[in-house]
Amino acid sequence: MTLRPVGVAHTPYDTPDAAPHQGFADDADAEIEIFDEYADALAGIADAIRITVVYWAHLADRTSGTESDGPGAFARRSPDRPNPLSICVCTVYDVDGQRLEVGGLDAVDGSLVLDLKPSLQTER
Amino acid sequence: MTLRPVGVAHTPYDTPDAAPHQGFADDADAEIEIFDEYADALAGIADAIRITVVYWAHLADRTSGTESDGPGAFARRSPDRPNPLSICVCTVYDVDGQRLEVGGLDAVDGSLVLDLKPSLQTER
Repeated sequence: MTLRPVGVAHTPYDTPDAAPHQGFADDADAEIEIFDEYADALAGIADAIRITVVYWAHLADRTSGTESDGPGAFARRSPDRPNPLSICVCTVYDVDGQRLEVGGLDAVDGSLVLDLKPSLQTER
Repeated sequence: MTLRPVGVAHTPYDTPDAAPHQGFADDADAEIEIFDEYADALAGIADAIRITVVYWAHLADRTSGTESDGPGAFARRSPDRPNPLSICVCTVYDVDGQRLEVGGLDAVDGSLVLDLKPSLQTER
């Protein structure tokens, strides 16, 4: 199972500590830049008001959850988990070619984006 | 970016066509079996009423979204997308060791599970 980065997130957050615990708690503007190879996959995205963004939390601790004290990784929403797949619902403010201006993205600047999909309702 | 399968889904659906388009539309019982290596990560999971399950849609078409007619992969919720990461909110009925009995899982039988996390509210 290998992942293909489809884009990159540009956000105001340089470190995990700077990022909000939940994206919806902070409406700072962010930008998602989709790579050329996946430009066609964006057709129709401007119709979405909210999108679910899946990104790779590259600074996460992947050994978390193999310890035995406290709640396990699967009982927590921390990015520290065996597969650091972060899921965040964002509001789409604008789409300009391969760049999406969004609100509510909790990713660290430079995080690689794995997927976008329309959100049926607020996903958290 | 490499993924670690943390478990496997046992469901009544043998093919993608047999699986519901959205898990919440079908409450057939399913089971998630977490592998031994990740057993500790389940600590506290029984407190969750709903969990978000991330799984690998291994039968999906990963070339989808590179074509140019109709809505692109990022504007659709089909499993056919560059990274076939499926996100499904399930109801937790019972936890028996490393086996979770759940409702609402739309995965094909045998799908590899990548992550579980408590759902803050219904995620779709």
